Amino acid sequence: MSRINILDSTLRDGAQGESISFSVQDKIRICQALDELGVSYIEAGNPSSNPKDIEFFQEIKKIPLKNSTICAFGSTRRKNSTCEQDSSLQTLLAAQTEVVVIFGKAWPFHVTEIIKTTLEENLLMIKETCAYLKEQGKRVFFDAEHFFTAYQENKDYALKTLQAALDGGAEVLCLCETKGGSMINQVQTAVKEVVELFGKKAQIGIHTHNDSGLAVANSLVAVSEGATHVQGVLLGFGERTGNANLSTIIPNLQLKMGHECIPEENLAKLTPICKQVAEIANIKLNSQLPFVGANAFSHKAGMHIDAVLKNPKAYEHICPDQLGNERKFLMSEVAGRSTIIKKIQKFAPSIQKSDPIVKQIIERMKELEYEGYQFEGADGSFELLVRKMLGQYQPFFKLHYYNTIGSNPRPEEGVCCCAQIKLEVDGQIEVTAGEGDGPVNALDIALRKALERFYPLVSQIRLTDYKVRVLDGKFATASRVRVIIESTDNEASWTTVGVSADLIEASWLALVDSFEYKLIKDIAKRFNKIV
Amino acid sequence: MSRINILDSTLRDGAQGESISFSVQDKIRICQALDELGVSYIEAGNPSSNPKDIEFFQEIKKIPLKNSTICAFGSTRRKNSTCEQDSSLQTLLAAQTEVVVIFGKAWPFHVTEIIKTTLEENLLMIKETCAYLKEQGKRVFFDAEHFFTAYQENKDYALKTLQAALDGGAEVLCLCETKGGSMINQVQTAVKEVVELFGKKAQIGIHTHNDSGLAVANSLVAVSEGATHVQGVLLGFGERTGNANLSTIIPNLQLKMGHECIPEENLAKLTPICKQVAEIANIKLNSQLPFVGANAFSHKAGMHIDAVLKNPKAYEHICPDQLGNERKFLMSEVAGRSTIIKKIQKFAPSIQKSDPIVKQIIERMKELEYEGYQFEGADGSFELLVRKMLGQYQPFFKLHYYNTIGSNPRPEEGVCCCAQIKLEVDGQIEVTAGEGDGPVNALDIALRKALERFYPLVSQIRLTDYKVRVLDGKFATASRVRVIIESTDNEASWTTVGVSADLIEASWLALVDSFEYKLIKDIAKRFNKIV
Repeated sequence: MSRINILDSTLRDGAQGESISFSVQDKIRICQALDELGVSYIEAGNPSSNPKDIEFFQEIKKIPLKNSTICAFGSTRRKNSTCEQDSSLQTLLAAQTEVVVIFGKAWPFHVTEIIKTTLEENLLMIKETCAYLKEQGKRVFFDAEHFFTAYQENKDYALKTLQAALDGGAEVLCLCETKGGSMINQVQTAVKEVVELFGKKAQIGIHTHNDSGLAVANSLVAVSEGATHVQGVLLGFGERTGNANLSTIIPNLQLKMGHECIPEENLAKLTPICKQVAEIANIKLNSQLPFVGANAFSHKAGMHIDAVLKNPKAYEHICPDQLGNERKFLMSEVAGRSTIIKKIQKFAPSIQKSDPIVKQIIERMKELEYEGYQFEGADGSFELLVRKMLGQYQPFFKLHYYNTIGSNPRPEEGVCCCAQIKLEVDGQIEVTAGEGDGPVNALDIALRKALERFYPLVSQIRLTDYKVRVLDGKFATASRVRVIIESTDNEASWTTVGVSADLIEASWLALVDSFEYKLIKDIAKRFNKIV
Repeated sequence: MSRINILDSTLRDGAQGESISFSVQDKIRICQALDELGVSYIEAGNPSSNPKDIEFFQEIKKIPLKNSTICAFGSTRRKNSTCEQDSSLQTLLAAQTEVVVIFGKAWPFHVTEIIKTTLEENLLMIKETCAYLKEQGKRVFFDAEHFFTAYQENKDYALKTLQAALDGGAEVLCLCETKGGSMINQVQTAVKEVVELFGKKAQIGIHTHNDSGLAVANSLVAVSEGATHVQGVLLGFGERTGNANLSTIIPNLQLKMGHECIPEENLAKLTPICKQVAEIANIKLNSQLPFVGANAFSHKAGMHIDAVLKNPKAYEHICPDQLGNERKFLMSEVAGRSTIIKKIQKFAPSIQKSDPIVKQIIERMKELEYEGYQFEGADGSFELLVRKMLGQYQPFFKLHYYNTIGSNPRPEEGVCCCAQIKLEVDGQIEVTAGEGDGPVNALDIALRKALERFYPLVSQIRLTDYKVRVLDGKFATASRVRVIIESTDNEASWTTVGVSADLIEASWLALVDSFEYKLIKDIAKRFNKIV
């Protein structure tokens, strides 16, 4: 039950993940998010390997942070040289951070075969680098690269590298499981010995990778053995299989093991902050991620849903609210009626589970799912489908036709696509057209123009996301596609879906659902008369 | 160092994962893949909750399997009833499998609050169900649901449920970590005691979920304490955060801990079989997955790449070949020249790392990556880019224009889109058009028709995959999109990329790259003269 310092390396080790690349502005936004969450340290870059980082370190100094201390990362000095002459160390100092994290080689194989120097010189490199940075007024954390591999092969030398860092004045000795190959008991034994030997003179840290699927387990075991500094990446991305996932480690340490890593009241910000960082990093947050994934508290089996409706603890290890996440009931052939009826009753409270229409709705959903629809993530389209089957729907317009025309090269004046549309509302015809980037954008603009005359509310709709999923890649450009559109009017947000072999048609279907959902939502009173 | 029996539940518990749904044919193909891999048991469905499963169990009996035994899954009999009267048990028997897996409640809370019966009746339900099935000639495995939660709250009762199953004749007592909330030491303690008490009379099994990110760790710890039966899902999908991932557990048990789970020679099939199952399940295999993910042995940091080129053990815990996976070097701003030069030398062996053109190529790649291109997964477009910069390229045709026209409703005769194209090869003009499902399909058809006259080789190209990624969802239908196309001519396959705010243009760019890549590849001789 002690204080554990979290060091997040999203911006340094995390940036080694495939397709991860941060602009200076991205880095600043991620620092702000991590500070908001309340991690102790943010390892924000390796200035000597990435010139963009220098600009970042200058910018971040202007931003006040509440909880987090920014660290710069670098290597020990080059072999057979001095710290003063080492340009990388000078660049590191230029970052002007309070803390520097220095990695050095703990594994003799790396010393003799990769950087090709003597074991003695390597110890000097570690000690002198730490001492030099300390003299320059820095707090120094030492990352012992490949510590666990070294501990298996040459324990004596591995421990000497820690002693060298300690002699140089390092305040954290972080044991790195760089290759991610160690089993839990190996990490346990090594951390235990290191804590016994060095735990009174320095903080012992743990840094793991997930190559054996054990990054989280190895981090937790290290803490159980006395480590008080844990390095990882908030969303777990990084080189190869990724770094230890802090969004999993923090709740385990704090809720299950009783340690404090971040301010207690910030735990409920974990899920929204993870979503925000995923968005900045431009990755899809894995929906299966423990604690913070979209499905972490989703239930699909009918039996599970029935039980959770009786009492959530039947199938939930903690309450999703604690992490700012939420419970979901997925719809599917195994979901059974409990889920569907719960969703239906949100807008049609009079429908009962035993009503024969419920069975018909489930049948229709199955047919559509077979065609490639998915209602799990498209509540707007689901509501429209149900309303149609309940007779609680009338179309807002009748389409006569639309045409889209795309040209390459673009016309002199600009955009490449235009869409024509002809539609009818209460016997009145509207013919109009729109131009846009691509056929769907043009069609979106044309449809808005056509409808605004009849339904001014349409102008409040903003599309906030547009996703395309190719359903059967094997037919390549003739594959069916599923389009999902997210919309908002600043009061609510809703998601709609369309499926077709033609991407334009699939987008059209999702667009029309989005517009109709908005209109039904806002003119429910007029609408309820119809029912 | 013992024999560990693996039970794969992809088709039963795995089917509870979001967006997972199997046809009978899918199920049969997955059984064949799992049998090929060599797992001991395949838990293939719950016939009483899914009528489609009955058809499957009839079909699978006709398929000869080499390694795996098919199991059907079901629940203990209903409360206050008999096994003979229980329709679910009769349906389970109708599946006619050698093995049945029966789950029962180990946690008093579930007994009294969810199924609402007495603790005594629950013990009878377990014992009588096992005994009845055993009398019917079945081998019986007992899944003690919520065993670990029960062990914490009421150890005595939890152990009584195991005794009841044993008394009924169960040969496996499987301890289920149903909520996924237990810490490693909790699992360790419980398994240890169960092995001591029951390990001589039955096999002890472990079944974990990943809600705390510890499903793999908890499975391995259970084996260390004497469990010899491990349940999981090959790719780790399942309810909420998923089941224990067998593609991680099997290599750990076999390569790191020295147990035998599958025939030694089958380990190298693990990666291809995982890819195959992912394809049948219609999911993207997580590239970060340990051992079998596309990035499990990918290196991005320049320093790592340099070291791995010297000796792979510098940053790899095992050799990717052992699992049928492969090493990759990713390209990016942090990759450094070693990766790029290795890729360039594949088709331009004379270029050296120090050549100034290498720096220019890297600069150009960075610019394009900034626009949204990604070359990590698009080797075809990368080669074309490099050839262009080396002067080893001449265009195969000149585009005058294309137009695409999409209509809704569709014309009477059929497809909704047509594309017109005008292009020029060696001064000769070709004007043609194509119809297709959607504008991209129509354009693909038109471009082929136009080029075939000049380059008959074009007819060998088949597009095998087409992917669309929306790059900045916030601009919705005006967002930039990245299109990735995979092509093959049955000899080779290659991937190309295009980026634009217009989906049609992005697709066009990737299509043209694909066609040009094929032509360069096949007329390299003529082509080399040009250089």
